[in-house]
Amino acid sequence: MTYSELQTPQRTIMTPGPVEVDPRVLRAMSTPILGQFDPAFTSIMNKTMDMLREVFQTTNKWAFPVDGTSRSGIEAVLASVIKPGDKVFIPVFGRFGHLLMEICERYGGEISTIECEWGNVFDPQVVIQVMKNVQPDIVAMVHGETSTGCMQPLKEIGRACREQDILFVVDAVATIGGTEVKVDEWCIDAAVGGTQKCLSVPSGMAPVTYNERIEKVVLSRKKVEKGIATPLDEQNQSDGPKITSNYFDLSQLQDYWSPRRLNHHTEATSMLYALHEGLRLVLEEGLENRFNRHLTHEQALGAGVKAMGLSLFVEEEWKLPMVTCIKIPEGINGDSVRTMLLEQFGVEIATSFGPLHGKIWRIGTMGYSCRKENVLLVLAALEAVLLYHGAEVKPGKALQAALAYYTKESNEVSLSM
Amino acid sequence: MTYSELQTPQRTIMTPGPVEVDPRVLRAMSTPILGQFDPAFTSIMNKTMDMLREVFQTTNKWAFPVDGTSRSGIEAVLASVIKPGDKVFIPVFGRFGHLLMEICERYGGEISTIECEWGNVFDPQVVIQVMKNVQPDIVAMVHGETSTGCMQPLKEIGRACREQDILFVVDAVATIGGTEVKVDEWCIDAAVGGTQKCLSVPSGMAPVTYNERIEKVVLSRKKVEKGIATPLDEQNQSDGPKITSNYFDLSQLQDYWSPRRLNHHTEATSMLYALHEGLRLVLEEGLENRFNRHLTHEQALGAGVKAMGLSLFVEEEWKLPMVTCIKIPEGINGDSVRTMLLEQFGVEIATSFGPLHGKIWRIGTMGYSCRKENVLLVLAALEAVLLYHGAEVKPGKALQAALAYYTKESNEVSLSM
Repeated sequence: MTYSELQTPQRTIMTPGPVEVDPRVLRAMSTPILGQFDPAFTSIMNKTMDMLREVFQTTNKWAFPVDGTSRSGIEAVLASVIKPGDKVFIPVFGRFGHLLMEICERYGGEISTIECEWGNVFDPQVVIQVMKNVQPDIVAMVHGETSTGCMQPLKEIGRACREQDILFVVDAVATIGGTEVKVDEWCIDAAVGGTQKCLSVPSGMAPVTYNERIEKVVLSRKKVEKGIATPLDEQNQSDGPKITSNYFDLSQLQDYWSPRRLNHHTEATSMLYALHEGLRLVLEEGLENRFNRHLTHEQALGAGVKAMGLSLFVEEEWKLPMVTCIKIPEGINGDSVRTMLLEQFGVEIATSFGPLHGKIWRIGTMGYSCRKENVLLVLAALEAVLLYHGAEVKPGKALQAALAYYTKESNEVSLSM
Repeated sequence: MTYSELQTPQRTIMTPGPVEVDPRVLRAMSTPILGQFDPAFTSIMNKTMDMLREVFQTTNKWAFPVDGTSRSGIEAVLASVIKPGDKVFIPVFGRFGHLLMEICERYGGEISTIECEWGNVFDPQVVIQVMKNVQPDIVAMVHGETSTGCMQPLKEIGRACREQDILFVVDAVATIGGTEVKVDEWCIDAAVGGTQKCLSVPSGMAPVTYNERIEKVVLSRKKVEKGIATPLDEQNQSDGPKITSNYFDLSQLQDYWSPRRLNHHTEATSMLYALHEGLRLVLEEGLENRFNRHLTHEQALGAGVKAMGLSLFVEEEWKLPMVTCIKIPEGINGDSVRTMLLEQFGVEIATSFGPLHGKIWRIGTMGYSCRKENVLLVLAALEAVLLYHGAEVKPGKALQAALAYYTKESNEVSLSM
């Protein structure tokens, strides 16, 4: 059998990830391979660590990608930190909170949880109160729940964890690069970011950062692999409970990312090129500018959606500034709308999971996909497809509302200049 | 701080990986992103599975990449198959055998091992004899040990495993795409390949294949993640011992790679493009042609190295046909030679691990790096650098020997045409 070259259609991707990638990042991936111990390559590794620290707003020594999709970073942190029997407290407000529970359970954590209705977040004081009762070793929480379009305030919870000497682990997969994730200021001990969302780098790497509180636990479980351990390593094997996963063993990963460069895996060369270029573009734009850009397009999209006559699933102050969830109008088949958007307009939006599947659509405004022409196209296409499906939407209003927002915005910018 | 675009030197990479990548594969990675459930993308997933089956020479239903570097595929298979207390027999003939032990131990396997001196492989009958005594549940073995440049014959061991109803798991990271790996004919139940070696795709994916014997174990431990499980999934949770890793849970991975497309992770889009194009090039060249090309350049390299007056570490019939290990001449600093090769010629060769570090150099002839001009350059550069270091090598002989080999080869080809 013969196979043909890739032939891919042009798409406008307005999901909560994977999103479109800046052509400069795509081009960076076609850079020829370098050996993993080539000084030209290890210098790229080090610069990537530097840039990750800036994006995570941290002075942590450790900030590097795990080679895998976003959940690989989450699993690396949890597998390396949770010792069997550790008490882990996980407040759940959507699907990815369940994922944290799932992973913690598998690694032998004793889980306590509270759950709120999907579409809400927790009052930090409620979380802090339960923490006092539960007295966990670790609190693990999602920052931005893309499944429900909600963002949990973390600062007060982080400070309470630090005061009570609890480790605070945060899934910032959806938010990193799109809104503030202040690792140090919020007392986050370990944070995990995603590449394929607001950083706008292809899926396949998971940036993590952690501080010396996490490192202490990791080192207490350190074990250098047979076949590469020196006699000194053999002497220094720690006697803490071993980390079950080899691939996700942060004690080995940090040796690989340190000047020792102890071989653990072969760093994913082309993905690292992509991450390096993606982070460079984030910092070139500037974190504050980038966060504002995400807000602008989210606001324009929301204005258009509401002008059309649709309702948002979450509109409160805890709405994620890069995901807009829309209630599917009664009598409309959500999947049929999505299929028509894709087939007729080449526009992709998302459904949701579990209890929200078929109830809401999710539109992402993330990274390189977060652009004016994309927002205008998704509004035009959504209106047309809904009319085609017989939904009661107000024709012509959505684009006018978005345009009004954009022109007001640019007037304000020029007036303030 | 500002960061600059990637600026990378040109290199000739002659290590056992990561190796150079065909420009067509590099270009494929700059293809724009597609959503993970876009039919245009799932079709690429399916074609990649088809091509993997051809490369693994199998009719297995399951053949897909794990999103991570090579050892992620090894860990996915072992984590999903080994239940705590399972007896695992691992014959070790180099570093990557130790890695298998390491991973199996972490997942609770009871390990039995035999080890032979690095530079040798096992007589299959010896392995089979020990198997009869140990009566393991699983035999795990490396096919090509890049640390020592040796290749273990597997066919007889595979057949003995099948007869005794033992699961046979093979690390074919180094060999896949460079020499025969006959999964079905050799009765391999699960095999793991590497991308950054003879397949000549960047590091970051690990193709695996497994048959229904492995699938049966995996399904007996199946558990669909909370947050996406349907009521039917909840009913059908199996009661076998759970798989510790979420990321490496093959029961979830195979749901994602099946028509159900149950969301587990976001497939690494650009890496899948690369794997698709890399596999397409392998099949376009043809497996037999490709294996012969690897043999040709290995032979030319070996002829040159020996003509120079150097000795090979392994020359027996079990030598890996894509890695050539050379004894470092007495009194020569191996790392100084490697550094000069890189700095003056832009040529990279490798050192080895553990007991062989500083004793041998390893030169890979893999994938796109396995080309005449690369072999000739590494010989010319090695001779010059060794002379510069005062080694006793015979000037001018290496290239003449390689050229003689190449011209004889091409004469034979033209005569036989």
